[in-house]
Amino acid sequence: MLYLNSKDIEEIVENIDLIEIVEKGFKMYGEKSYQMPDRIHLDKGEDTVLYMPCITKDIIGTKILSLFPQNKDKNLPVISGIMLLNDIDTGLPKAILNGSSITAFRTGALGSTGIKYTTKKDSKSIGLIGAGVQGFHQLLFAAKVRNIKNMYIFDKNKDKVDEFKVKLKKKLPNISIKVEDNIEKLVRNSDIIITATPSESPVIPNDKELLKGKHIIAIGSYKYKMREIPDALYDLLDEVYVDTELAVEESGDIIQPLEKGLINKNQIKTLSEIMSREADITGKTTLFKCVGMALLDVVVAEGIFSKALELKKGTKIPL
Amino acid sequence: MLYLNSKDIEEIVENIDLIEIVEKGFKMYGEKSYQMPDRIHLDKGEDTVLYMPCITKDIIGTKILSLFPQNKDKNLPVISGIMLLNDIDTGLPKAILNGSSITAFRTGALGSTGIKYTTKKDSKSIGLIGAGVQGFHQLLFAAKVRNIKNMYIFDKNKDKVDEFKVKLKKKLPNISIKVEDNIEKLVRNSDIIITATPSESPVIPNDKELLKGKHIIAIGSYKYKMREIPDALYDLLDEVYVDTELAVEESGDIIQPLEKGLINKNQIKTLSEIMSREADITGKTTLFKCVGMALLDVVVAEGIFSKALELKKGTKIPL
Repeated sequence: MLYLNSKDIEEIVENIDLIEIVEKGFKMYGEKSYQMPDRIHLDKGEDTVLYMPCITKDIIGTKILSLFPQNKDKNLPVISGIMLLNDIDTGLPKAILNGSSITAFRTGALGSTGIKYTTKKDSKSIGLIGAGVQGFHQLLFAAKVRNIKNMYIFDKNKDKVDEFKVKLKKKLPNISIKVEDNIEKLVRNSDIIITATPSESPVIPNDKELLKGKHIIAIGSYKYKMREIPDALYDLLDEVYVDTELAVEESGDIIQPLEKGLINKNQIKTLSEIMSREADITGKTTLFKCVGMALLDVVVAEGIFSKALELKKGTKIPL
Repeated sequence: MLYLNSKDIEEIVENIDLIEIVEKGFKMYGEKSYQMPDRIHLDKGEDTVLYMPCITKDIIGTKILSLFPQNKDKNLPVISGIMLLNDIDTGLPKAILNGSSITAFRTGALGSTGIKYTTKKDSKSIGLIGAGVQGFHQLLFAAKVRNIKNMYIFDKNKDKVDEFKVKLKKKLPNISIKVEDNIEKLVRNSDIIITATPSESPVIPNDKELLKGKHIIAIGSYKYKMREIPDALYDLLDEVYVDTELAVEESGDIIQPLEKGLINKNQIKTLSEIMSREADITGKTTLFKCVGMALLDVVVAEGIFSKALELKKGTKIPL
């Protein structure tokens, strides 16, 4: 069995095109060529352990994530876990990968696949609300699909956002990166706005004029009570883009506007539906809401595993 | 994170009392002090990947097992997998253990806990039908709870059973171990009969006289269509002992006799119910049917993990 820790994975992803892999995943999603049982979870107060298994024609994989919000105060990662890959023919465990790394890279590539298909091609500026691990990977990958000149970053925690900026600058030396403490200004200056927070009330101002023509990538809300996007935005949308139909069941940013009648179900399109058409985005306001799915984790993990074998990375451990 | 392979686990279990740990698990089962979601599984033809998560007051654990019947023909293990333990306070992965070793030792200790409470104290002989990995561990652990003088082993596969005998003799040098190719004779000569096969029709003769006063430990059947025990036995039972209520939903050895009216639901008692009373087994015919449960896996895995820390066993791997 091969073990890939976070450092191994970071090195390997430099050598593969994760967005292409995620697009393949969406193609499989469109073709329904997979089995993905409902996620199950264990709960202990605020803490959750989440199981995300999936099997495709060629891959068996399972991500197990711990989501422990209090870890923040202990200076420990809120999301941790592992990803297991089994041999498709024998079922034997073939690899264990760091689950939070897979999540971060998968979500980064997922957000950017959204950017690729739901934002105008000449987008030059991005504003990020929520300077966490997920937000970091969103910006890293965004720079791969759009020619970004300016990035603006907001976070309630000032120390964190400065540290974030320094770390990001190392990875993206040619992009202007600014900390912005006024969200309205951040939105005004950005073609694309990415929200990556666990907020339970909208983090973007409820201002229709401000939001007109903006492209929103919302990755934070994954529960009914979570909201990042204000009601005003939904009025501006012809369609609402989601990564999977699960978003309609899980995210407050989709469920609550549906309940309020701000949008209707017919407006909701999955990315796999719109990838195959030539959508004209120019001048439009868009929202891409993603919640993630096991299918994308397993295709990303398998891609990383294959490359690891080729590059001889990772640690072999006997069963 | 600590990684414990099959060799580590084999060394560690020499130093702990797994039956005591399993008994503690049954106590927790009786007190309902755990969360255990329904098992979920992925299916691919005959092959299955099974997820068994459980959380107690102190332990978070998940076993993921592949059951690939065709592996037999490839000289690969039919059951393989991993067991993950997470820190109860932070959710961080703290250990990964070989899942088939955990299953084998847990099932061995489980069967013997059954022997301890459902067979006469002076049982001296055991017959095993099905010389696989599970059967091997059944006999190993049986010798810990009863003063066994004679073991008889049956398997359809002659080569396998001879190899099995040699391996077992090394572990139990003071017990007479014989290969027996006549099941009727095996049953006649044994106080306790253990069945550990994937059979879909009874492996024990349907002969009431032969079965009278025998103690049966049935571990093989875990699906509706699987049967190891003949109809004649149920007539001889006052009560039917199971490890968990899941047995009533999952095993053909319980469901089918219930459907046929050979037993009724009131006769079924879980081990945790009878552990606390002084049951008088002498002269009685008994059946203990076990299907296993995640709760027992996590308490066994946690016990092995704690001992590994104490003995400084295993391999530390960075997340």
